[in-house]
Amino acid sequence: MDRRQFNATLMMGSLAGLLAPTVNAQQTAAGTGPAKPVIGMLIYSDMILLDLVGPLTAFNILQTDVRLIAQTPEPVSTDVGLTVTPTATFDRASSALDVLFVPGGLRGTIEAMKDQATIDFLKSAGNQAHYVTSVCTGSLLLGAAGLLKGYNATSHWYVRDLLPLMGATTLKERVVEDRNRITAGGVTAGIDFGLTLAAKLRGEDAAKRIQLLLEYDPRPPFAAGTPDQAGAALTEDIRHRRGALIREAEQAARAAGGRLGI
Amino acid sequence: MDRRQFNATLMMGSLAGLLAPTVNAQQTAAGTGPAKPVIGMLIYSDMILLDLVGPLTAFNILQTDVRLIAQTPEPVSTDVGLTVTPTATFDRASSALDVLFVPGGLRGTIEAMKDQATIDFLKSAGNQAHYVTSVCTGSLLLGAAGLLKGYNATSHWYVRDLLPLMGATTLKERVVEDRNRITAGGVTAGIDFGLTLAAKLRGEDAAKRIQLLLEYDPRPPFAAGTPDQAGAALTEDIRHRRGALIREAEQAARAAGGRLGI
Repeated sequence: MDRRQFNATLMMGSLAGLLAPTVNAQQTAAGTGPAKPVIGMLIYSDMILLDLVGPLTAFNILQTDVRLIAQTPEPVSTDVGLTVTPTATFDRASSALDVLFVPGGLRGTIEAMKDQATIDFLKSAGNQAHYVTSVCTGSLLLGAAGLLKGYNATSHWYVRDLLPLMGATTLKERVVEDRNRITAGGVTAGIDFGLTLAAKLRGEDAAKRIQLLLEYDPRPPFAAGTPDQAGAALTEDIRHRRGALIREAEQAARAAGGRLGI
Repeated sequence: MDRRQFNATLMMGSLAGLLAPTVNAQQTAAGTGPAKPVIGMLIYSDMILLDLVGPLTAFNILQTDVRLIAQTPEPVSTDVGLTVTPTATFDRASSALDVLFVPGGLRGTIEAMKDQATIDFLKSAGNQAHYVTSVCTGSLLLGAAGLLKGYNATSHWYVRDLLPLMGATTLKERVVEDRNRITAGGVTAGIDFGLTLAAKLRGEDAAKRIQLLLEYDPRPPFAAGTPDQAGAALTEDIRHRRGALIREAEQAARAAGGRLGI
């Protein structure tokens, strides 16, 4: 990073640009900078915003080229009432992604599993991307597009058992890596995933720098982050309250599995 | 929660509404529901979106009345390029908040520390709220409004030593509680903070339910989330790169301390 870039970073004042200079010093000296990984993040209605913002914050510090990709350019609703405006649409975005990323949000995921344009985009982008990734129920969408057939994967705990309906093997781990597929558990697993992928894209030092900037030394005030920790009563209560949606997700997964010949 | 509300929750499909019925069954049966805590979250330019979205996700599941409060109703920029549209403005929002919350984002925080309208709002809202809270550099703003004078507090590691300039005592803990002040460390500490506050507002069971829904069983892939863990080289490099901004923050904190007679 030369002096001018360094000052620009300070002026910008966000967390972006706080990574060490990368190996490609020659390109940087020439003023062009190293090539930025292109990360395509699927955006869809009723997604969980935290599923997106955890990894997005890491990718932003990593100085990647992030594209928020949706079917149309209209702002998309999220669980917390904030909207996200896409920066790219399906018809222009499927090629040349280094990373395809899919966030979760159960009702939104189910609707998207039934949407042929979304499935077609994921198939096309996923077959070309270097990494095919998800957080939370996003893996159901990857599965519905046939991208997890024959792979180990995970999802939010209340739907991860549906993955085998689409040809995947479920692992009860927070972040599951299998060749170029990286899937993560529910919502907050996106931060662990973001750091894991950052290390793959730019090395462990870059990932550690992001972790320090985000002061990611978690101290959950309770031990209730998994069904095992939370206990049967709480877990079954949530399963019951989400029952109708989980059954809808199962139907969508079975239908997708049928189309995939599973 | 009666059957109609339960179905409405299922239809809505977001994570909100998945809390157990609260104690006020009589009000619920009458169809009015228990009073929702009113949470006012300050929104300002160049804030870190994850500072907001971590706690916001918890508060949303908790079924609170969240108000995103800014000086004007225009959309506000964040570190990751997404904008947040306020739902309330300073002139209408300072009274009747159960919780005042301030997110961080260093450059934005510094600008806001120098903005009299922001400081006036924080003073007024903070003196009336039941809880006065922050994540990351947000505590510098609380400090500049005189709300941390005589309190223990924390902030992002690279500026927490500035809090005594505004009359606070810095503790190197992830979430610091002192009477009705709750301040948290950098960025990701917002999730620990959100669960801590959820337990205060609605009890431990409600907080554990949120933790399970968000599958918050963190597994950082590296040990680099604090200066001690990351080591001196990485820590000093970040301090150096943020040096100009940290010095600006120090000047703003000294000026605020002077106005507070410290």
